[in-house]
Amino acid sequence: MCKEKTKQKIKSQEDQLSLELIEAQYDLKDSRGTDRAKSVLIIVSGIELAGKGEAVKQLREWVDPRHLHVKATTAELLSTQQTFWETYANSIPSEGELIILFGNWYNDLLKTAMHVSKPLDETLFDAYIQQMRQFEQDLKQNNVDVVKIWFDLSWKSLQKRLDNMNASEQQWHKLHGLDWRNKKEYDTIQKLRQRFSEDWIYIDGEDPIARNQQFAAHVLSAMKDLPQHNGLVEHQWQQSPIPEQLTQIENQPLDKAEYKQQLKKLSLKVARAMLQHQRRVIIVFEGMDAAGKGGAIKRIVKRLDPREYEITSIAAPEPFELRHPYLWRFWRKLEENNSLIHIFDRSWYGRILVERVEGFAKPFEWQRAYDEINRFEKDLVDTQTVVVKIWLAISKDEQEKRFKAREETPRKQYKITDEDWRNRAKWDDYLNAAADMFERSITPYAPWHIIATDNKRQARLDIFQAILKQLKAD
Amino acid sequence: MCKEKTKQKIKSQEDQLSLELIEAQYDLKDSRGTDRAKSVLIIVSGIELAGKGEAVKQLREWVDPRHLHVKATTAELLSTQQTFWETYANSIPSEGELIILFGNWYNDLLKTAMHVSKPLDETLFDAYIQQMRQFEQDLKQNNVDVVKIWFDLSWKSLQKRLDNMNASEQQWHKLHGLDWRNKKEYDTIQKLRQRFSEDWIYIDGEDPIARNQQFAAHVLSAMKDLPQHNGLVEHQWQQSPIPEQLTQIENQPLDKAEYKQQLKKLSLKVARAMLQHQRRVIIVFEGMDAAGKGGAIKRIVKRLDPREYEITSIAAPEPFELRHPYLWRFWRKLEENNSLIHIFDRSWYGRILVERVEGFAKPFEWQRAYDEINRFEKDLVDTQTVVVKIWLAISKDEQEKRFKAREETPRKQYKITDEDWRNRAKWDDYLNAAADMFERSITPYAPWHIIATDNKRQARLDIFQAILKQLKAD
Repeated sequence: MCKEKTKQKIKSQEDQLSLELIEAQYDLKDSRGTDRAKSVLIIVSGIELAGKGEAVKQLREWVDPRHLHVKATTAELLSTQQTFWETYANSIPSEGELIILFGNWYNDLLKTAMHVSKPLDETLFDAYIQQMRQFEQDLKQNNVDVVKIWFDLSWKSLQKRLDNMNASEQQWHKLHGLDWRNKKEYDTIQKLRQRFSEDWIYIDGEDPIARNQQFAAHVLSAMKDLPQHNGLVEHQWQQSPIPEQLTQIENQPLDKAEYKQQLKKLSLKVARAMLQHQRRVIIVFEGMDAAGKGGAIKRIVKRLDPREYEITSIAAPEPFELRHPYLWRFWRKLEENNSLIHIFDRSWYGRILVERVEGFAKPFEWQRAYDEINRFEKDLVDTQTVVVKIWLAISKDEQEKRFKAREETPRKQYKITDEDWRNRAKWDDYLNAAADMFERSITPYAPWHIIATDNKRQARLDIFQAILKQLKAD
Repeated sequence: MCKEKTKQKIKSQEDQLSLELIEAQYDLKDSRGTDRAKSVLIIVSGIELAGKGEAVKQLREWVDPRHLHVKATTAELLSTQQTFWETYANSIPSEGELIILFGNWYNDLLKTAMHVSKPLDETLFDAYIQQMRQFEQDLKQNNVDVVKIWFDLSWKSLQKRLDNMNASEQQWHKLHGLDWRNKKEYDTIQKLRQRFSEDWIYIDGEDPIARNQQFAAHVLSAMKDLPQHNGLVEHQWQQSPIPEQLTQIENQPLDKAEYKQQLKKLSLKVARAMLQHQRRVIIVFEGMDAAGKGGAIKRIVKRLDPREYEITSIAAPEPFELRHPYLWRFWRKLEENNSLIHIFDRSWYGRILVERVEGFAKPFEWQRAYDEINRFEKDLVDTQTVVVKIWLAISKDEQEKRFKAREETPRKQYKITDEDWRNRAKWDDYLNAAADMFERSITPYAPWHIIATDNKRQARLDIFQAILKQLKAD
């Protein structure tokens, strides 16, 4: 009788929890497009048989399962040639979404750390943890809430559960490819997870009912905690002085024959240097309109096989891209593309150039973007990618000359629109934005190369030289 | 002197071609969103060293390279468990785009046909060609122009070019993994390509200049040929009679204890049957609002591990999805998802249900969608996927009862919106649309299962029975 009552009490508690979860799901979903929008990413990891799968299964019964997405991929070794987040770009939830990640960067890290032939040392392990945490901080800043949950289980209980397991259940028990009968491996993994950052939640898998309820409660609380975007304080902004290179554009004539000879030599050298080491090369072009981005890109790719490179022209983001962190669309472009050479005709710097000047990004958004971009590029450089950033500087007079020439030349008319003239009217705003960009994003690992372009010939040679310098092949 | 003149003439011809190409690129780009919008997909294949790469390289120098995308993937063997188009979903150009596909389904087919241990027989080869052509027809209907170009080269010239090749150039010469010194293999591939459909364009790779110009001319003509969408004629539409099953909903009571026992038995049986053969299972739910899609899905997944299935709720397409063929977003969902079990809460049938009724699709668009959908499902079934299509039928009275109950129950209020009442007002239109759907999309390989749902308990059992039947496990 008493047992029956307890059962009823649990049932009614569970009904209440389920109701709250469903309500929170719909509130989260409805937050999309509002100034309280966010998304929730639940990272689950833990000891085998502690009940991750069961807890998620139970949660999916309590919620509306159509609005809870589960992604499960096998843990992979971390690569020295790819950032840890690249394969997960498509697993980052969109505004209003809730995703649970069984396969995640921590599982990859654990697998790498436990790798038989080449285990990671602790310093490297900690560096990865630090980098992952930083990435998650950036997600949170961009309203992707990250909740990390470790399902724990004592050695004794684990062994008991292994004893009781029937063979048909074993298909999902492959996490980290570990031998869970081996006490030493168990201890190592426990030692490693203690090096995780303190923002992990630990759930004891001993009691299934308590475990499932605790898990659901954490998910509920993450969903309910909707931010107030407008509450973010803006910094007092310190405008950097405009570097002379942006305003004093030199224009030395260059003999055509000399130019042609140099161009051929340099372009071949660049092509060779880019392909030599089978590492990824990313070339970013930014600069005022008509400064010669298109012409420069044409000359770089002339020496390449069309299958070796990809050119990405960046325009305004799509609505679905706006429902993700700002850099997300670039993560995806990197993930989708397997060319060794990526050329960006405009780039992620749009956040602190056009989006700042035109007011598409709020001040607190573009102000924090410098750090986000620096970390993004650091992650790329750390995985053997060379990032070459080129700013094409043009004088205001020369731009006007080129705009007019474009309007008068049939072959070039497509290159000039009313928008170009409107941008020109904001010349000083763009210079200020560029000045701040140089101040904050010239890093040792990915500096800017500012190229004067009033003389097109000299500019093209200088661009090749800059690429060679960054490739350390000059 | 005469040579100099010829050179000049070629140069001026090339300048003219380049100008036309660039203009056509921008016209194509600007067609986006208009009633002349289209995209162009160039499929290139051919004999090794005939100069595909060089022709594309030359083209990319003549056009604005930022608006010509090149995709190169290695040929893969066609799988018996995946449609040939699945891996190419992301290579289908969006409105206004131009993409050249080095890696494409014909290369996969040739590789499969030439496979050492298991070559394809001619009947199967021809069936693939037929299927590919059909797919391309559907692309064309959806304004993706497909141009297929074969670069040919005689045996003699091929051998000569192989003689003159230097080692460093060999990296791209891996197409089909064939031995191009082997006359028998050369002859086989020539024999196979003669079985291609007659809409292929053949370019002789003997003379590089003529080859490059011909290739560019074909691309130019494809870009220039913009369709007039509105010119498409609509059929006289023959409305099908409404099947009795949609209006005469039976409602026999079912004892709760009996229901619970049956439910447990059937749900376990379904879970086992779905996972047994490691083949993909797609379950599609359609039906009027409140007919019980959500509840049915909950009961199916209750027996599954959350990592084994994916639920996709289909809402209105995103703007970027609208710039692709209608079915494209479903191709992508299949490609992105590696779960064996996909459950669709509404589906591609939206085209001939909500989009027809609400006028989001033009008559010629939804009228041709039946065939497109049938072919899509046929391709899936042919690659060992089980497609289970379930229509949940409800009476108009019962729907009203459930709407009102939802409005009065806190836990269910999120399920009812003004839109549901608006849809209800179009009850007869939806019945007509459903009637036409049954008439035209009940196929031997993927029939519809119409389930009466006024009695929820019986309905759930019937749904399980329908799934078992389609899995041939009943």
